[in-house]
Amino acid sequence: MSLTEDQRAEIAAHAQDTQPTRRPTVPALETLLYQPLEVLDHGFLRVIDYMGDDAAIVQAARVSYGRGTRKVSEDAGLIRYLMRHRHSSPFEMCEIKFHVKLPIFIARQWIRHRMASVNEYSARYSILDREFYLPAPEHMAVQSEVNRQGRGDVLAPQQAAEVLDILRDDAMRTYRDYERMLDADQGFGLARELARINLTLNTYTQWYWKTDLHNLMHFLALRIDPHAQYEIRVYAEEMLKILHAWVPQTAAAFEEYRRGAVTFSATMLSVLRRMLAGEVVEQPASGLSRREWDEMMATLKG
Amino acid sequence: MSLTEDQRAEIAAHAQDTQPTRRPTVPALETLLYQPLEVLDHGFLRVIDYMGDDAAIVQAARVSYGRGTRKVSEDAGLIRYLMRHRHSSPFEMCEIKFHVKLPIFIARQWIRHRMASVNEYSARYSILDREFYLPAPEHMAVQSEVNRQGRGDVLAPQQAAEVLDILRDDAMRTYRDYERMLDADQGFGLARELARINLTLNTYTQWYWKTDLHNLMHFLALRIDPHAQYEIRVYAEEMLKILHAWVPQTAAAFEEYRRGAVTFSATMLSVLRRMLAGEVVEQPASGLSRREWDEMMATLKG
Amino acid sequence: MSLTEDQRAEIAAHAQDTQPTRRPTVPALETLLYQPLEVLDHGFLRVIDYMGDDAAIVQAARVSYGRGTRKVSEDAGLIRYLMRHRHSSPFEMCEIKFHVKLPIFIARQWIRHRMASVNEYSARYSILDREFYLPAPEHMAVQSEVNRQGRGDVLAPQQAAEVLDILRDDAMRTYRDYERMLDADQGFGLARELARINLTLNTYTQWYWKTDLHNLMHFLALRIDPHAQYEIRVYAEEMLKILHAWVPQTAAAFEEYRRGAVTFSATMLSVLRRMLAGEVVEQPASGLSRREWDEMMATLKG
Amino acid sequence: MSLTEDQRAEIAAHAQDTQPTRRPTVPALETLLYQPLEVLDHGFLRVIDYMGDDAAIVQAARVSYGRGTRKVSEDAGLIRYLMRHRHSSPFEMCEIKFHVKLPIFIARQWIRHRMASVNEYSARYSILDREFYLPAPEHMAVQSEVNRQGRGDVLAPQQAAEVLDILRDDAMRTYRDYERMLDADQGFGLARELARINLTLNTYTQWYWKTDLHNLMHFLALRIDPHAQYEIRVYAEEMLKILHAWVPQTAAAFEEYRRGAVTFSATMLSVLRRMLAGEVVEQPASGLSRREWDEMMATLKG
Repeated sequence: MSLTEDQRAEIAAHAQDTQPTRRPTVPALETLLYQPLEVLDHGFLRVIDYMGDDAAIVQAARVSYGRGTRKVSEDAGLIRYLMRHRHSSPFEMCEIKFHVKLPIFIARQWIRHRMASVNEYSARYSILDREFYLPAPEHMAVQSEVNRQGRGDVLAPQQAAEVLDILRDDAMRTYRDYERMLDADQGFGLARELARINLTLNTYTQWYWKTDLHNLMHFLALRIDPHAQYEIRVYAEEMLKILHAWVPQTAAAFEEYRRGAVTFSATMLSVLRRMLAGEVVEQPASGLSRREWDEMMATLKG
Repeated sequence: MSLTEDQRAEIAAHAQDTQPTRRPTVPALETLLYQPLEVLDHGFLRVIDYMGDDAAIVQAARVSYGRGTRKVSEDAGLIRYLMRHRHSSPFEMCEIKFHVKLPIFIARQWIRHRMASVNEYSARYSILDREFYLPAPEHMAVQSEVNRQGRGDVLAPQQAAEVLDILRDDAMRTYRDYERMLDADQGFGLARELARINLTLNTYTQWYWKTDLHNLMHFLALRIDPHAQYEIRVYAEEMLKILHAWVPQTAAAFEEYRRGAVTFSATMLSVLRRMLAGEVVEQPASGLSRREWDEMMATLKG
Repeated sequence: MSLTEDQRAEIAAHAQDTQPTRRPTVPALETLLYQPLEVLDHGFLRVIDYMGDDAAIVQAARVSYGRGTRKVSEDAGLIRYLMRHRHSSPFEMCEIKFHVKLPIFIARQWIRHRMASVNEYSARYSILDREFYLPAPEHMAVQSEVNRQGRGDVLAPQQAAEVLDILRDDAMRTYRDYERMLDADQGFGLARELARINLTLNTYTQWYWKTDLHNLMHFLALRIDPHAQYEIRVYAEEMLKILHAWVPQTAAAFEEYRRGAVTFSATMLSVLRRMLAGEVVEQPASGLSRREWDEMMATLKG
Repeated sequence: MSLTEDQRAEIAAHAQDTQPTRRPTVPALETLLYQPLEVLDHGFLRVIDYMGDDAAIVQAARVSYGRGTRKVSEDAGLIRYLMRHRHSSPFEMCEIKFHVKLPIFIARQWIRHRMASVNEYSARYSILDREFYLPAPEHMAVQSEVNRQGRGDVLAPQQAAEVLDILRDDAMRTYRDYERMLDADQGFGLARELARINLTLNTYTQWYWKTDLHNLMHFLALRIDPHAQYEIRVYAEEMLKILHAWVPQTAAAFEEYRRGAVTFSATMLSVLRRMLAGEVVEQPASGLSRREWDEMMATLKG
């Protein structure tokens, strides 16, 4: 992460300022507010603001006049019930806002989540910093042979070093040319909206991104998955920690009913019933494809 | 408004609780928090929570590290610029949550605004209160002859009284029958989800409703309009006051560039140019229909 | 269903008109186009237009230049893959538009699906027909004791008849008063937007409703569920038939991976593993609540 | 534009296939279906499918049983009325689907329109073609001094040629390195999801993009504006032609009430009234900023 002294000072000044409020407040999240959590080589994630807590979900579900909470166990039970039955609207009653610094190729995946608001740093208006993502050697891997959109074995150290050199050299050269095209004195004074097209997709950008708790969990469910690209998964992992700090009862229900849950198809369910009845079922007679069969067996083994 | 003692006590208990926060806080809105603002005969509007302030809009628009604000005049200028050029995304960075009690026929108009989250009191699960909207005599009017979906002259006092009797009698009778169908001992013990179908559309319901500042202003622009039905306009008018308390710079820009602004069509613009050049333009040679011409002239007279 | 002669003639005239098109066309759905399918006592569902077919999903998923389809089995396999892995965006590439006549209390549930477009018949502008939903005796049931928002046993015939009388009388009386309030000569000439507030929630309304295939399946998954209210479930059942006519491969995948599928929580999965390993697990030591345990056992029994 | 022979053959085969349909059909748009319209140096726009026509808007607005159209003049009048009063829901009843090939930096602007569905060619799964956008000399301009996010004067021919060399060389080099990193035999066999991060932002991508008519016009209103970046404006211009072919009455109303219309703020309106009353108003006493005053005067001059 590469914050300037000025940026650190700005953050610190902002973070010290405390006011009284009558709104629901989460002390565990307050201590995290504004602090940049490092992600990748130059990226970060900062919680900028939030609205609501576990009790606000209960309050909305009950359409109550006051806080609407009863005993902790009853509230947790209601939250579990809502999560289990996919009653999503009470979870929409909480909101969170992040400041994120991330490589452009990850921003392009992230923005596909439409149920969110975003303000991105404008490269038509401003000049991007000379920062680009370079994968650590342990994350440089060959194309997977089983998964057409995934990674296989890690590169040998020598090869990783060579790839790294290519990535770094190309990023540095295209950035140098970007600067030269922009430079009104020594270069060409080219419009920023044009010069930026020369930058590589690993260049960092940043944005304010705001979503509600329901859509945050949808983002997490998809992006924390082992099939998600590593470079977005690491952001999701930081966000999951924030989820636990912010709404611990909801986060526990999310782990139980979403992240740790498994869905079996109609055919899988019939296989399961036969197995529990003591039948020895094998793939050819299961009605499942080889791939689905393997997935199901892997799930049942754990 | 008909809050029970219990409800008032719940609200009061909730409202007294103050916590320190590092989040942006708006003292003028804090004092309004949780208080029911009366609307119509039994309805209300309560602000339950909010996120962000004028500075948060500026901060997001600048993608800044700290509060991101400069001089008050510069910030106000940026907010005016954003509003004028319909850069809506920074306004999405603020959020507000209401508890609203409103007649069902108004709830049906309100829910058409899809960019919001809602949790409504469930009449499948609970029993609705015996409260229904009865218009005040000064709002009982005949069908407009010029506006196919509006009101014309107010009814004569005697007629208004008769209409009121009809509305009250029908609402009371259908509610009494609702209770009787529900009653497991003296009545039929009918399922709540069925019994409620007997209620009239002026029965009150309530919900938690949350939206962002951009969509709130869109709601206001449509619902504060003189063509909006009176019974939803009165809610919008309360919300506009809340807008001014919450984000005064944004509210001022909204008044200037949205509520007080006027849009002229291409043909109207050409008429305007001819008039400013000193030409005496009359409707037949204007290219405008009689109705558009009249609207334009009315706008120019003010 | 109560279509007038004029309405039937309008529909027939529209339905006969055939044009050549180069767009994807589904003969099985073409024959259903415009025909009103009866639902409840006066309601209907009509398919008005559609866009895309099974092949259009494949084509979008492959971002292909032509039809993009290969062998039928390969296309079906891709559709199953997309459904199984919840890749929803290709299913958004198909669209369907309905004309629906439905009671207002059902319209209020339906409209909660925000990812759709709707144009409703305006009771501010026009006069509603004298049609209201009266449940058949076999659907009149007492409040469920186990499910706080559901129905239990059916009413005895005599009781059902009495409830029916109440519902009919109240609907007829409020409608008669609605007409009287509206009548400019013999009544009060009251504005339509006010008079309608006297109508009961079982009054029929109608709308054009359009959504994409992904959101249609989300609607179906929720509304075809046994826990959905009967009066919306019957609409969903008709829509499911339409789904099978329109996109048979997608519909088959929907049955396999959504409607017939089951989700086990993290704890349920661990119980399952213990059972498959031969252990005799009982509820107290399962980690599951009594209710979740019962649900799981019911699912495993089928 | 650089379609391969195979791609041209696929398109041609698809385009010849004609079927009868009972759905609304627009002959002028049918002839355009599937044909790639060239945009920029390698991009294109193809209409893949559509749903509805001008009459479908009228039909939905009237919630009619048949086609719902009356005289052409009455229908056009209703469409103008809906556009003028921003009744957007009937326009949502029409839908259009495009296949677009466009540079990544433009895709990043385009995707900000959230009310649309998109399936993009996946560079995690497939290899991108060696195609990148190189601006024509007449579009290479220096940074504007008045507009912080726009272009000023065009570069001198010699300078434009130098910039072009830089852009081409960098794009070619990074693409060559992309290929080398991917190559399992001669290179490194790097995972596709990683290798692609080396590509520049002017690399072409492609997607299927579908939206409704209301949101299409919102896209057009923003992107056809002279302040939009040239490289997205040229796509919008092609789409506007398609709009006129598809829904001519709607397109005419769009030109009159959106594209050719102008909005004056509350203060501008008061200035206008003073001017029409014969007063000579000058900027200092107008209440407008210098910038707003200049804009207003420019608008009034035309």
